[in-house]
Amino acid sequence: MPVLVMKFGGTSVASLDRIRRAAKRVGVEVAKGYDVIVIVSAMSGKTNELVGWVNETSPLFDAREYDAVVSSGEVVTAGLMALTLQEMDVPARSWQGWQVPVRTTSAHSAARIEEIPTSNIIAKFDEGMRVAVVAGFQGISPEGRVTTLGRGGSDTTAVAFAAAFGAERCDIYTDVDGVYTTDPRIAAKARKLDRIAFEEMLELASLGAKVLQTRSVELAMRYNVKLRVLSSFEEQSDEAGTLVCAEEEIMESNVVNGIAYSRDEAKMTLISVADRPGIAAAIFGPLSEAGVNVDMIVQNISEEGRTDMTFSCPTDQVLRAEKALDAARVRGDINYHDLVADTDVAKVSAVGIGMRSQSGVAAQMFRTLSDEGVNIKVIATSEIKISVLIDRKYMELAVQALHDAFELERTA
Amino acid sequence: MPVLVMKFGGTSVASLDRIRRAAKRVGVEVAKGYDVIVIVSAMSGKTNELVGWVNETSPLFDAREYDAVVSSGEVVTAGLMALTLQEMDVPARSWQGWQVPVRTTSAHSAARIEEIPTSNIIAKFDEGMRVAVVAGFQGISPEGRVTTLGRGGSDTTAVAFAAAFGAERCDIYTDVDGVYTTDPRIAAKARKLDRIAFEEMLELASLGAKVLQTRSVELAMRYNVKLRVLSSFEEQSDEAGTLVCAEEEIMESNVVNGIAYSRDEAKMTLISVADRPGIAAAIFGPLSEAGVNVDMIVQNISEEGRTDMTFSCPTDQVLRAEKALDAARVRGDINYHDLVADTDVAKVSAVGIGMRSQSGVAAQMFRTLSDEGVNIKVIATSEIKISVLIDRKYMELAVQALHDAFELERTA
Repeated sequence: MPVLVMKFGGTSVASLDRIRRAAKRVGVEVAKGYDVIVIVSAMSGKTNELVGWVNETSPLFDAREYDAVVSSGEVVTAGLMALTLQEMDVPARSWQGWQVPVRTTSAHSAARIEEIPTSNIIAKFDEGMRVAVVAGFQGISPEGRVTTLGRGGSDTTAVAFAAAFGAERCDIYTDVDGVYTTDPRIAAKARKLDRIAFEEMLELASLGAKVLQTRSVELAMRYNVKLRVLSSFEEQSDEAGTLVCAEEEIMESNVVNGIAYSRDEAKMTLISVADRPGIAAAIFGPLSEAGVNVDMIVQNISEEGRTDMTFSCPTDQVLRAEKALDAARVRGDINYHDLVADTDVAKVSAVGIGMRSQSGVAAQMFRTLSDEGVNIKVIATSEIKISVLIDRKYMELAVQALHDAFELERTA
Repeated sequence: MPVLVMKFGGTSVASLDRIRRAAKRVGVEVAKGYDVIVIVSAMSGKTNELVGWVNETSPLFDAREYDAVVSSGEVVTAGLMALTLQEMDVPARSWQGWQVPVRTTSAHSAARIEEIPTSNIIAKFDEGMRVAVVAGFQGISPEGRVTTLGRGGSDTTAVAFAAAFGAERCDIYTDVDGVYTTDPRIAAKARKLDRIAFEEMLELASLGAKVLQTRSVELAMRYNVKLRVLSSFEEQSDEAGTLVCAEEEIMESNVVNGIAYSRDEAKMTLISVADRPGIAAAIFGPLSEAGVNVDMIVQNISEEGRTDMTFSCPTDQVLRAEKALDAARVRGDINYHDLVADTDVAKVSAVGIGMRSQSGVAAQMFRTLSDEGVNIKVIATSEIKISVLIDRKYMELAVQALHDAFELERTA
């Protein structure tokens, strides 16, 4: 029988009632003839409680113990989901990560899945079981200890199972009903997308549209897993939600498919850096080592052997960046007059695979912002994305104006 | 290094503060030179919450899923305890049941421990780890699923580890400071016992003195594990609490060491049963099959081929007993005029290994009760115990009078 993976996030299993509701959705797919693998998160709030206990007990905790404690929430939901399905006469059982086993690296709290043997679960499907309920977010290290995959890791568990079992689709049930052209709280005209390409979803996810864990989208792209995001709080048809899929499966697409934003971006400028070969490496090497996630980089024209270097990074990494650069200066690796941090900026991006084949998108974006009197501080582009750094106070205005300009409220 | 097992019950790990307090006790033993195995229960209230969820989800639950859900509480405490010890610079790590592995039977929710391989933990002790924190109450079945040992099962886990590792002692930390001659809430003169024999503890435990799980005492007796019951809420010396040990290690003992009682006992009488060979088997066979725990049995003198048969069982099993006997009558296996249930009775017992060598205990017990005007309804005796069934309203009076008569407030 074809396999379907269904993943339910924390809000979708927050109470026994909600678990029952989710189980009913599973029952519908079983009735259609699917063997279903259900991946569950912990009841919403549970993981935070456990993390709180660990932090209070031991601020510099042993990540192996952290993982043992924090992974227990998913185990509870998995058991309760299996029981709920059994009550509905759907043959089901639960699996903990180590029972499958979901083999991961030893990088506790941020482990990566290396292998998911399918034989145990397939044997049970062959015996008549219809639903395997698997505790998400967790695995087992080569040393036999429980690992976790990092926040949002259950999405990754779901995609990894879909890949391992060759699932027809991986449905991610969450508290939103799909992926939108932009944040509906900012632009009322925001429209739910029926389909979106993996590449676009990756750009949107990493830009702050927190629907799916970035890693899960990467994994889905690599193994070409059809990923569907939909709400567990609405009656669902086969066409509900948003399908995240390969570009080839999207017949028509707007040039721009989404406007993303990030409030927590800071602009850092190194004033009057000695311009010489290798200077970029000398600056960004230490930043990388210090764990600073540099996003956009701009270098001004060099004058008399000196230049200004501007980059952006998350606001909460500004201090770390300053420290790392100062240390490099003390070591004599770089030389600059001043380092200026501007934390009153925001990033706005237009994303769309259509950009690859259509020119003029950047020009239209700049003109739109200019018409609204929004000054652009930094520009960065990729094949399918144009990002600008602007004053934070213009962020909402910019998002709305761009959404209008690219006519995102209209389907392609 | 010698090994010590320390078990902390639910109230002893009910909060992060209490876990810290318990960890300090562990630190004291580590400082003395012990390698310590700590067995933890779930935070008090946690297991009830989980059991409640399972019952609400599925009244006739799959015990395998029940075990998966309910065992998660101990996993949390084990991790937090390990982290707390690490914060105190005591090298420690946690183990879940399947990691040791604690191999059990497949009798989910009432599994029995079959084997505890020691090599994993010993290897860590050899590497310098000083404390192995093990989640109590749980194990793994031959099929690789999580099992639990039944309520109070962490006591059994502790004793089994003490036996497997040849521990010097197994300390059970709880919310009482030892085993008393009787319930101090009933008899103010109740005295804490310094030592008590396994056999006596077994009789007291099964009679309702709920300090230790009966099975853990049986196991301690079989493997001669020195078991100490003490409070986790008081400063402790080496002599604190009550030591449960082999008879040979108790130099002097009172004839009677404890007065136990049980409020939840019912007296059932089959009136005018046809008395023939095999009649007892025909009555008590069906009761046993129905899961009725028959305790005392008395058969009156037979007259004209008919007799009255009286037995006691827990009050909440009366209905089940009536059903089973009625079914046997319908089948024609037994024949009786009437079945009378008296649920307004209580059982009071005197327990002491000294009874083996001293006669007259029963006589003194009956005289004491008679002096107080208490009518005895049923009597049952074993080598080290005399039990009587009396009207419930006299229960407290009987306990106090017997405690006085056998001078239990005085040490031997």
